[in-house]
Amino acid sequence: MKTVPRMPGAREVPSAATLKHVAERAGVSPITVSRALNKPAMVSADLRDRVRLAVDELGYVQNRVAGALASASSPVIPVVVPSLSNAVFVETIQGIQEVVQRAGFQLLLGNTEYDLDREHAWISTFLGWSPPGLILAGTRHQPRTRALIERWGRPVVEIMEVGAKPIDMNVGLSHGAAGAAMARHLLERGHANLLFAGCRIAEDYRAGQRFRGFDRALASFGAARRPPLTRNVPSSPALGGDMLVEALRLDPPPGAIFYANDDLAVGAILRAQREGIAVPGRVAIAGFNGLDISGLVTPGLTTIVSPRRAIGRIGAEKLLGAIEVGSPKVRRVDVGFELIVRGST
Amino acid sequence: MKTVPRMPGAREVPSAATLKHVAERAGVSPITVSRALNKPAMVSADLRDRVRLAVDELGYVQNRVAGALASASSPVIPVVVPSLSNAVFVETIQGIQEVVQRAGFQLLLGNTEYDLDREHAWISTFLGWSPPGLILAGTRHQPRTRALIERWGRPVVEIMEVGAKPIDMNVGLSHGAAGAAMARHLLERGHANLLFAGCRIAEDYRAGQRFRGFDRALASFGAARRPPLTRNVPSSPALGGDMLVEALRLDPPPGAIFYANDDLAVGAILRAQREGIAVPGRVAIAGFNGLDISGLVTPGLTTIVSPRRAIGRIGAEKLLGAIEVGSPKVRRVDVGFELIVRGST
Repeated sequence: MKTVPRMPGAREVPSAATLKHVAERAGVSPITVSRALNKPAMVSADLRDRVRLAVDELGYVQNRVAGALASASSPVIPVVVPSLSNAVFVETIQGIQEVVQRAGFQLLLGNTEYDLDREHAWISTFLGWSPPGLILAGTRHQPRTRALIERWGRPVVEIMEVGAKPIDMNVGLSHGAAGAAMARHLLERGHANLLFAGCRIAEDYRAGQRFRGFDRALASFGAARRPPLTRNVPSSPALGGDMLVEALRLDPPPGAIFYANDDLAVGAILRAQREGIAVPGRVAIAGFNGLDISGLVTPGLTTIVSPRRAIGRIGAEKLLGAIEVGSPKVRRVDVGFELIVRGST
Repeated sequence: MKTVPRMPGAREVPSAATLKHVAERAGVSPITVSRALNKPAMVSADLRDRVRLAVDELGYVQNRVAGALASASSPVIPVVVPSLSNAVFVETIQGIQEVVQRAGFQLLLGNTEYDLDREHAWISTFLGWSPPGLILAGTRHQPRTRALIERWGRPVVEIMEVGAKPIDMNVGLSHGAAGAAMARHLLERGHANLLFAGCRIAEDYRAGQRFRGFDRALASFGAARRPPLTRNVPSSPALGGDMLVEALRLDPPPGAIFYANDDLAVGAILRAQREGIAVPGRVAIAGFNGLDISGLVTPGLTTIVSPRRAIGRIGAEKLLGAIEVGSPKVRRVDVGFELIVRGST
């Protein structure tokens, strides 16, 4: 057991303020204080203000741990994502936080760096907090992780992609369909020798799904297919530029490159600009995600917008709905995607 | 109290696995299981593996809530930041997470959107979890927030800037000194009519500190001073481009613009490129943060690198040190900054 030292300069306080102290200061009963704090909609604005003022004056802190033990459920929602270096997951988390925060929950954040062992470790620890539900990025987990969650039995939302066998609820988009849509677009524009380029496609299996959708579409149109160009390091704009130079040395050189994400694709456009490589004259470039910057580079980047903030929001709403009422639920929401065609293709 | 429904398809399990079940399965005593889980360094690798296997097979979940109540301290570290849309705070959080995760803590994340009322609300709630310490972005808080934290009395690290009166420990850089360094650089390059441009400078007071350092340096060199160009909306690359166009209509037009951050400055360079505005021929552009993309645009962006990952890591290490040993501590660490001069100035 850890001892927690006080700060050297901290004032010694004889005893922490309790609910009873707040009630006395506000001139109401303890049960009214409890109601004003936990169900503010049930009391008048005037009463809320009085209690709030007393809470501030006394520096009263509600004990969440005791509350969680009493109710066998903590006011936390664990969220497990594979990466934070990608703006996509940050925006998804923001969408989740908007919703769960309003409902009085706090977000516990786990970052797996695309490692399913680490995902298992995060989920095991988080379940020890007795959360009322879980939000996980992706539908692919280790069998022992899936078994652990199923045995646990509370509501779970898997977000980002729509998967074949969700554990419980599922909100996302079809990455295979997105890849196919991009293949069609590039072929319709008359580009040949199409290449997919990405990083860690085995771990970032949603990028892998985009590649397979892309590749199947090429096959169905009778177009030339080739293995993806991949690198086993994290994705970055600088890397996208390096991969452009590498791709142009291939035989035959690609007429268009579909990058696994906008970070890589924007980096490729910036590199092409610096080196005087004509886009799309010599090589067309496309991305995925629809980051803001994709519309600001020259030429503008053709990309697929993933509605990630909406995915976070809808996922959180589904989870809270299942927690609150346990009503029959829509098990799967496909939020779709949007292809934005700009000058780069 | 909330009732938590089970998933419709969930298998009913007669009773959850306990520490005793794990001990039986692993063929060891319950105290050994506890030790293997909580102090893995104290047991042999073989024993750790046996316990781990039993834990997985039974889907045993350690009860964190009961543990927290018993020790009057939860294995969580709350971190409060003003924004997640900015890559800077995400990298800082990654630095923190690297450290606290290794020490067996989980990160509770609060995002204030630069609103000090919301900061107070986050901290009040987080303290209810009985964390052993806190990490806060910034040294500016409401008086009631500061009073609450001082009364609470456990270790606190304020990160990002070095402030005059930290609550406890403080790790960051001098934003005033960074602003002054950029003013010196732009004047040395022969630019005149220097302009500072940013968003929500009142709330993002570190940007305000950079402006004041910049402005004071201009005064000390006898250079022309002017009010900052500001917008009351969140920062983005697109906005940086709009503000460039607006700035060039000022009388006299600025010879150089120091943007509050690289998001804005990169957007300005991309806009200048699209519209054929010569950089630095017509206007020099500089930023702050040192994002990767600042080196990829044409011309490369002159910027100041804030060592944010290091700030997160050092801040977390200071906090854990104070939690573990409560020893005498270095109260303030100034991590400094680095000016990177590129083609844009």
